Amino acid sequence: MSLRIPGWTQNLPLVESIHLELQAPHLNDNTGDLDRLLRKLREMGYAPVQVQPSSLSLILGRIREGSFSLTAVLGYTPCHWELIDVIPGFSPDPPLGFGVDLGTSRLAFYLMNLGTGELLDETSADNPQIPHGEDILTRILFARQEGNRIELQRLLVETFNQAMGSMTERRGLSPDRVYAVTVAGNTTMSHFLLALDPCNICKEPYIPAANRFPLFRAADLGLRIHPRALVFVFPNVGSYFGGDLTAGILAAGFHRSDEVSMLVDVGTNAEVVVGNRDWLIACAGAAGPALEGGVVERGMMAAPGAIDRVRIDPQTLDVSYHVLGEAAPAGICGSGLIDLIAEMFGAGILTIQGRINRRLDSPRICSSADGMSYVVVPARDSADGRDIAISDIDVGIFLKSKAAMFTILSVIIRKVGLSFGDLRRFYVAGTFGNYIDPAMAIRIGMIPDLPLETFEGLGNTAGRGAVMVLLDRSLMEELERVCGIITYIELNVNMELMNEFRGALFLPHTDPRLFPSVRIPERAMAGA
Amino acid sequence: MSLRIPGWTQNLPLVESIHLELQAPHLNDNTGDLDRLLRKLREMGYAPVQVQPSSLSLILGRIREGSFSLTAVLGYTPCHWELIDVIPGFSPDPPLGFGVDLGTSRLAFYLMNLGTGELLDETSADNPQIPHGEDILTRILFARQEGNRIELQRLLVETFNQAMGSMTERRGLSPDRVYAVTVAGNTTMSHFLLALDPCNICKEPYIPAANRFPLFRAADLGLRIHPRALVFVFPNVGSYFGGDLTAGILAAGFHRSDEVSMLVDVGTNAEVVVGNRDWLIACAGAAGPALEGGVVERGMMAAPGAIDRVRIDPQTLDVSYHVLGEAAPAGICGSGLIDLIAEMFGAGILTIQGRINRRLDSPRICSSADGMSYVVVPARDSADGRDIAISDIDVGIFLKSKAAMFTILSVIIRKVGLSFGDLRRFYVAGTFGNYIDPAMAIRIGMIPDLPLETFEGLGNTAGRGAVMVLLDRSLMEELERVCGIITYIELNVNMELMNEFRGALFLPHTDPRLFPSVRIPERAMAGA
Repeated sequence: MSLRIPGWTQNLPLVESIHLELQAPHLNDNTGDLDRLLRKLREMGYAPVQVQPSSLSLILGRIREGSFSLTAVLGYTPCHWELIDVIPGFSPDPPLGFGVDLGTSRLAFYLMNLGTGELLDETSADNPQIPHGEDILTRILFARQEGNRIELQRLLVETFNQAMGSMTERRGLSPDRVYAVTVAGNTTMSHFLLALDPCNICKEPYIPAANRFPLFRAADLGLRIHPRALVFVFPNVGSYFGGDLTAGILAAGFHRSDEVSMLVDVGTNAEVVVGNRDWLIACAGAAGPALEGGVVERGMMAAPGAIDRVRIDPQTLDVSYHVLGEAAPAGICGSGLIDLIAEMFGAGILTIQGRINRRLDSPRICSSADGMSYVVVPARDSADGRDIAISDIDVGIFLKSKAAMFTILSVIIRKVGLSFGDLRRFYVAGTFGNYIDPAMAIRIGMIPDLPLETFEGLGNTAGRGAVMVLLDRSLMEELERVCGIITYIELNVNMELMNEFRGALFLPHTDPRLFPSVRIPERAMAGA
Repeated sequence: MSLRIPGWTQNLPLVESIHLELQAPHLNDNTGDLDRLLRKLREMGYAPVQVQPSSLSLILGRIREGSFSLTAVLGYTPCHWELIDVIPGFSPDPPLGFGVDLGTSRLAFYLMNLGTGELLDETSADNPQIPHGEDILTRILFARQEGNRIELQRLLVETFNQAMGSMTERRGLSPDRVYAVTVAGNTTMSHFLLALDPCNICKEPYIPAANRFPLFRAADLGLRIHPRALVFVFPNVGSYFGGDLTAGILAAGFHRSDEVSMLVDVGTNAEVVVGNRDWLIACAGAAGPALEGGVVERGMMAAPGAIDRVRIDPQTLDVSYHVLGEAAPAGICGSGLIDLIAEMFGAGILTIQGRINRRLDSPRICSSADGMSYVVVPARDSADGRDIAISDIDVGIFLKSKAAMFTILSVIIRKVGLSFGDLRRFYVAGTFGNYIDPAMAIRIGMIPDLPLETFEGLGNTAGRGAVMVLLDRSLMEELERVCGIITYIELNVNMELMNEFRGALFLPHTDPRLFPSVRIPERAMAGA
């Protein structure tokens, strides 16, 4: 993961370890042991400092063990410092922390050295809740019973413990040195991690149990790191705008820029933020799983065997493609589908209505049970010995998703009284975002027709935001400020969408003035 | 207990219960449940509000249970409010709290209605640690082992639970409504309650593990009241100046007065504070158990059968006395001893050197194994059929204690560059303080020769201070300020004391100018 973060140069880690030589007590300075330590910390600018009552006796013992030479481990919270631990004498080991991207499908873990800001290791794991529901709605229904909520939490905690344990072991580090965990997840996943009832998230008026969470300690959740490690869960703005996105706003650096930018997380649910340091408008709406390679007959997740890049020769109508991993092609992932639709349209294989042009003469175009099809990989070259093709029905499904995506973007930009041309940057979040070719996405009318340099893929913004807070505690307050200025618009109930949506079902759109850079091939105008 | 507290009229209880009707969520206000509650509280001036992570899920459930009508129970801490609980709907029951005087010998409990400020009930119990040491030093030695510390804590917690349980039951109140406990104890007792290592308290340079304690929750200690009830333990100033005395300073109202006053807690250990709202000097020193009725042959604690008042006719040398309870006289308690010595001196039975005048002709004066004795109660009238008498040796022991007491007062008043005449008020703390007759104590040279209206007995100042914080949370900050301005002088190591002490061994003193109001009978000058 790249840690290139705009305007971000500070080093204010969430946890600091500080070696102190306290003056030994004598008759003219009979301050208590704890008071002596806190007084020294106050002189150094750490105040107020609190101690968890349950650790008081232990910490007091450690002060005497080192004869008033000690290393204090201090965790930051917006209203106080917390004395997480005291190590007798001088401890040279810097504190460690984990940044976690808590995704519906995948979890990513980043092990950081909080002393140097260095990324020590990273790993990822499938979300262990998938057996209780591939999609999040099924899991919410499952979580109606309290026992099931506990089970969903247990599964996550177990995966956290496995990932964290194997990473610290691999690096020869003690898990007891991990003093902080920051977790960026969508609203529901954060509820699952904390075993909160998510049942109101998915029913009107879509209310989470909590948007801002108290700071947890590792022992509260059963994490096998230092028991008093701080666990910070990113705040949500609403049911469909979670901590993964507030983390994304930090990662994009919106909150520090004068210029207006837009951040889009492309996926089944499309989440969008537009604004600058003074104002932020956010919304989320269902785009559809087709954008991620789901639903479409030969669609698949980005994994070995997935076609992720497609080019079509407009003369020969022949295709070239790139396959992920060292594997025979097995299906087409999200970025491959965008390329494919865009290239089919550019070659005149698809009409502006999104129908396969049956009048073209090519062995790749043939009729099937689902209407006409275009064969990307013939049976003999595919992993399963079946054609990898896309049908009229597939294209229709895909266009609904891209139309939903563009509709959401159009509605929000109009809501704020701007046009797309006012955007200085257009950030595409999510791992997927890094693979989308903006030129292709523009050609199909999925994203606005802006100069290509406007677009920037940010990769795993949730994970990056999580890591940023580990390394710069001042972002906690910035995050509070950001959440305070965000206006969240609930698009699910906005009737305006339907009219926008109809125009966006076309390639690139019924109003070609919206996409001046897109050349529409004559064949595409011809109709099927 | 009287709650007449100088300059104290506020009603800012430590815990408030507030009925709220939250606006139900709708599409244009999709704030999360918790955030909705905290927003409302913020509007009402309660911010920041924190929730214990372990109670988050439960509290969130309660918000929905009452359909957004709820009673929030909020506890105050100097840096935030704590959302202790949420009761669905409207709860008419005001929060309850216990103020506790955690004494070395006795524990006193005051059950308060925090809504009205009313004292609902009170009780007291022997300190259950006495079997592990009558005096505190023995208990400190016992507590060297961690297992023993846990046992000493367990004994206290059990006594707390018994007292609190029986009081709430007697009043038909649910212990779950008790949301706060304030505990004023000396430094060692507070360490015992929190199972902190007290071993450095009694060895030079006399350092407590902690003078200020974090706020505990009932569940941390195993108290069977509301598990998240706040437990506030009064801060100490030093090993020999504990939370009982900082509570006493609050009870006396020092910290709000322009005038200089002195507070004395008379007992085995004499603790003294002098000062006003701007400065406070404190010290403590060993006076001796004789002042409380200990050590002296027929001395006893104030209990049924104890002689607590004595008058002697200077003509007949005959005695009249008052006995506590409906009982035959069994011994003499502290205030009785002060009266007895003062009256013996006033009648010329005692010389200024403190010897019984053997030349007087009275059947009450006789010789015994311990030198001369004065019989207060002849054998036929006493509870055990033995004379209740006081011997030369008893008087000697007693005079050492009174001399130590006066020495401490003299040293501290000189330390602050004042004389006793500068004192506006002279507070006598402790239950014992209420029973001392100042005129008698002056006559023996135990306390300074000030106009009688200067003296005020405050009764159980530790318990009163504890109750005051329950009813006025602003005192928490005042207490912080008070602890910040107190200068503590360690008298144990002050050599100056020995010279002062020798003069004070006389009746009333070798320097009679210090006690101008005391008439010295000619007989007392005569020598034994």
